Amino acid sequence: MSSESFRYESVRQNVLDLIESGVLRPGDKVPSLRRLAARMRVSLSTVALAYGQLEGEGVIEARPKSGFFVCGASPALPPPTTRTQAAPAPQSLDRAALIRKVLDTMSRRDILPLGVARTAEDLLPLKQLNRILAQVLRDEGGLAGFYSPVQGFEPLRRQIVLRALESGMESTVGETVVTSGAMEALHIALRCVTRAGDTVVIASPTYYCFLQLLENLGLRVIEIPSRPGEGVRPSDLAQVAERFRVAACVLTPNFNNPDGALTPDEAKAEIVDILAGRDIPLIEDDIYGDMHYGPTRPRSCKAFDRKGLVLSCSSFSKTIAPGYRVGWLLPGRFLDRAVEIKATTSVASASPTQMAVAEYLRSGCYHKHLKRLRPAVKSRMEHMHELVGRFFPPGTRATRPPGGSVMWIELPGRADGVEFMHRALAKGIGVAPGVLFSSRGSFRGFARVGCCVPRGPELTKAVEALGLIAGELMTPGHTPPLPSFREDNPITLSEDGLKDW
Amino acid sequence: MSSESFRYESVRQNVLDLIESGVLRPGDKVPSLRRLAARMRVSLSTVALAYGQLEGEGVIEARPKSGFFVCGASPALPPPTTRTQAAPAPQSLDRAALIRKVLDTMSRRDILPLGVARTAEDLLPLKQLNRILAQVLRDEGGLAGFYSPVQGFEPLRRQIVLRALESGMESTVGETVVTSGAMEALHIALRCVTRAGDTVVIASPTYYCFLQLLENLGLRVIEIPSRPGEGVRPSDLAQVAERFRVAACVLTPNFNNPDGALTPDEAKAEIVDILAGRDIPLIEDDIYGDMHYGPTRPRSCKAFDRKGLVLSCSSFSKTIAPGYRVGWLLPGRFLDRAVEIKATTSVASASPTQMAVAEYLRSGCYHKHLKRLRPAVKSRMEHMHELVGRFFPPGTRATRPPGGSVMWIELPGRADGVEFMHRALAKGIGVAPGVLFSSRGSFRGFARVGCCVPRGPELTKAVEALGLIAGELMTPGHTPPLPSFREDNPITLSEDGLKDW
Repeated sequence: MSSESFRYESVRQNVLDLIESGVLRPGDKVPSLRRLAARMRVSLSTVALAYGQLEGEGVIEARPKSGFFVCGASPALPPPTTRTQAAPAPQSLDRAALIRKVLDTMSRRDILPLGVARTAEDLLPLKQLNRILAQVLRDEGGLAGFYSPVQGFEPLRRQIVLRALESGMESTVGETVVTSGAMEALHIALRCVTRAGDTVVIASPTYYCFLQLLENLGLRVIEIPSRPGEGVRPSDLAQVAERFRVAACVLTPNFNNPDGALTPDEAKAEIVDILAGRDIPLIEDDIYGDMHYGPTRPRSCKAFDRKGLVLSCSSFSKTIAPGYRVGWLLPGRFLDRAVEIKATTSVASASPTQMAVAEYLRSGCYHKHLKRLRPAVKSRMEHMHELVGRFFPPGTRATRPPGGSVMWIELPGRADGVEFMHRALAKGIGVAPGVLFSSRGSFRGFARVGCCVPRGPELTKAVEALGLIAGELMTPGHTPPLPSFREDNPITLSEDGLKDW
Repeated sequence: MSSESFRYESVRQNVLDLIESGVLRPGDKVPSLRRLAARMRVSLSTVALAYGQLEGEGVIEARPKSGFFVCGASPALPPPTTRTQAAPAPQSLDRAALIRKVLDTMSRRDILPLGVARTAEDLLPLKQLNRILAQVLRDEGGLAGFYSPVQGFEPLRRQIVLRALESGMESTVGETVVTSGAMEALHIALRCVTRAGDTVVIASPTYYCFLQLLENLGLRVIEIPSRPGEGVRPSDLAQVAERFRVAACVLTPNFNNPDGALTPDEAKAEIVDILAGRDIPLIEDDIYGDMHYGPTRPRSCKAFDRKGLVLSCSSFSKTIAPGYRVGWLLPGRFLDRAVEIKATTSVASASPTQMAVAEYLRSGCYHKHLKRLRPAVKSRMEHMHELVGRFFPPGTRATRPPGGSVMWIELPGRADGVEFMHRALAKGIGVAPGVLFSSRGSFRGFARVGCCVPRGPELTKAVEALGLIAGELMTPGHTPPLPSFREDNPITLSEDGLKDW
C-alpha cells in the first residue's frame, strides 16, 4: 500500500471506528474536512478522498452547505407486513438441499456471507481468545486432553451461572449443562420433552435449522406469528394451547431469527404463565440476548419460570467464537434426562475450548467485549438499512430490529426469494431465502440478510447487486401478497411436518 | 524424593518401560540384579528394592534358582461362559442412575478409573498434541475461531481418509463427516437409518451408552451373542434377519466393549453380505480398531461394503485425546441425511481441536504413537489378568482380549455386579457392573474393568480389594449360572426396550 493510500485508509477507518463505537450516531455531523485533517495531521485532499469513499459506500452523506452526516437517521424502509405469502400452489421444495446450499456458504471464503447469521470476524475477540487457549494448555494441558464431565467443565458452568444473572435467571452450577453450541442445546431440550408425532408450537418465521431439526425428530409444527416490533403475542399462544395438545413451545423471544422481533418482558411473563397453566414446557433460544442495541439486556423467559418448565438454550457463538462450539442448556426440571441425552449423543463437549471460554469470562474480558460489540453491530445494521433503502426497488420492506445481526427483507413485487438466492450466489453473495423460515413454505417473497459484514466497497457493491436482482425479479402488474395469517385466526398448522420423515 | 528413592524408582520405571514397549514379554527373564545394577550404575540393593516392589505389584515373579520373570505368561483365568445370567425375577433397575454413577467417575480424580474404558493419561500424547494446538492457533488463529464446515475441517477429513486405508476402506473426503467423538457418529448414524419403534440388532454384551441411546431414540432391541474369542457369528445374525423386520444392525466387530471379542475378517465379510441381501444398514463402531495387540490391524466391516450400506463410526478418543472430541462417520449412501443431522444437532465440531488433530496426523506423529501405544496397553492388560488371577476367588473367569483396553470378568458364585460396584466405589475404585451391558438385565454376575491404569502399588491394592469384595459377595452353595443363550436359540428379544421412553 502506498503511503498516500495508507493515510487515506486510516482516515476512513477512524471515521468508521467513531461510528461503530457509537460515538457518532446516525444523523450526527461528521467532523469537517478541515478539522479532521488538522487532528490527524494529513492533507485536506486525503480526508476528502476518504469521505468520498465513505459516501460511495453509503456510510456518510453530504448535505448541501452543511457538511457530512452519518447515514441511516431516518427510517428509509417500512417494516415488512405481518401477512406472509403462502405458496399459490403446492410446490416441490427440497428444503434440505436449499439449507445445505445456504450452510455451505458458512465456511466459504469466496462468498460474501450475507446468508448466515454470523458475527463478522473483525468484531470477534479471536486473537485474545486463542491466546487464552494457548495459556490454558500450558497451565493445565493434561486436563485439556481429558473428558470434561458430561455436564461440562465446572469453572465454565460457574461463569455461565453468573452470566445468567444478567438475563434475570437464578440458576445453579448443578443444573447447567454445557453444550456444543445452542443448536445442541436445542436438540437436547427437544429430545427431553417430546417424542416423534408430538406437536410443537413455534413462531413464524423461525430459524430454518430449528424447523429442520423438528422435522428430523418427527415433530408436527403449529406456527404462530412473530410480529415485527412485537414478537409473539401471548393471546396467539393461549389460543393454540387451548385448541391443540401441545407437547412443547419453541421460541426465540430475544431478537427472533430472522425477523429480529423482541417479545417484551411483560409478554414473556404472560407466555410463561399460560404454558405453566397447562404444564407445557417452553424451550427458549436466547442466543441473541447479549446482542441488544438498547441500554438494558432483555430478560430471558426462564427469569419468569417458577415450575422448572423453561429450558433455556444459548451460546457464545454469536458473541465470541462460533468455532469454539461452546453453548449451554439450563434444562429446569428435565435435568436428569438432559444429562442422559448429552452423554449418549456426544459424551461431553471438547475440553480445551471450554477451558478457554471459562477463563475468558472469569477475567472479565467478555463483559468489556460486549460493550464494544453491541454498538458496532448496531451501527452496521443501520448501515445495511441505509444501503438496502438506497439500492433496492421501491416497495421493498425491511425490519429494523432492536438487536441481533440479521435483517428480514420483504422483496417487492412478488419476487421469489429462492431465485433471489440463486442469482445472488452466482455473483458471489450469500443470502437466505425466506421460504426456509417456515415449515409451510410461507415467506416466498422474503430474504434474510446478515448485517454484520464490515462497511466497505465490497459490501456496498454487493447490496447494489442484490437491489438490481430484486428489481429483475419483480413481476409486472404485481398485487399485494396473499394474507395467510388472518387477523381472526393467525394460527397455521403444518401439514407437511412429517413429509420427509 | 530422596536420591536413593529416586534411583530405586528409576530402576523400577526402566523395567516397566521394557515391559510396556514389548521388549520384555510375559514369561521373559528380567535382567539379573547384578546386570541391571552394573548397567544402570546403581547398587545391588537399589535394584533389589525395585524388584521387590515390582514383585509385590504382580509385575514380575521370582522363580527359585532362576531369577525374576515377567508375570502373566500362562492364562491364569478361564474365559467367561457364553451363557449369561438372566435376572431370576424381574428387578427394578434404574439403569440411567447406574450409568450416571459410572460416568460420574470418568472425570473424577479421587476414584481409580477402572469403571471407564479410558486410555490412561500417561499413554496419551497430550503434551505434544497441546503443543500442536498452540502452534495451530498461532498460525491460523482466525480459522480456529470460525465455524468449520458442517462435515468438518477439510485437512482433517483428508487425514481420516488416509487412516481409513489402514482398515481396508477406500473412502473419500467428500463422504467423510467429522463428529464430536464416536458417540456422536453413532447417534447420527442411528438417526440416519431408524425411527422410533424400529427394531435394531445388537451384540450382547454391548457398551451401555449405546443401549441407552437406543432406548432414548425409542428403538427396540434384539440381542445376539458376542462370543469371547469369536465375536458375532454370522449364522446368528442370519437367523434374526430372517425372522424379524430389522431396521439396522449395530456392531463393534473390533474388540467389542466390554468383552473385547474380535469378529474375524471372514465373518465380517459374511455379515456384510447377509445384511446387504436384505438391504439392512450396518452401523459399526470401530473405535478400538487401532488398538490391536496382534501384528495386523483388523479390517472394518466397511472394507467389505459394496452397497454403501455400512455406516462406520470411530474416533481418536481412545488413542490420543478424549477431551478433544474428534471422531468421524463414514455414512455411505446416507451421506446427505448424515450431514443434515449433523447440521441440526451441533452445526459443526469445534475447530481448534479438529485443526490440531489434523496436523498431528499429517506430521506422522499418530503412526509413531500407535507403535508405542499398542504394546503398552497389551502389557497392562496382561498385568491386569495376572492380578485378577492372583487376587480374585477361585471360579472367577475373565476375557483375555486381542485388543482394546477392557476386561470382562465373570464373578464367581452368583456375586452381584451392582453390589460389587457399590462396594468398590466405597473404596475409591470405579468398576462397571455387567448388568448395564444388556437391555435385558443379563450379565448380573459380570463386571467390566478398565486395564489401562499404570502398574503400581495403587493398582495392585485396588485389585486386591476388588478380589476381597468378590469373595464377600459369593453366595454359599452356589450353582453355575443359568444359561440364557441356549445353543438352539441364542436370540433374545428385548421386552423393555421402550419402558422408559
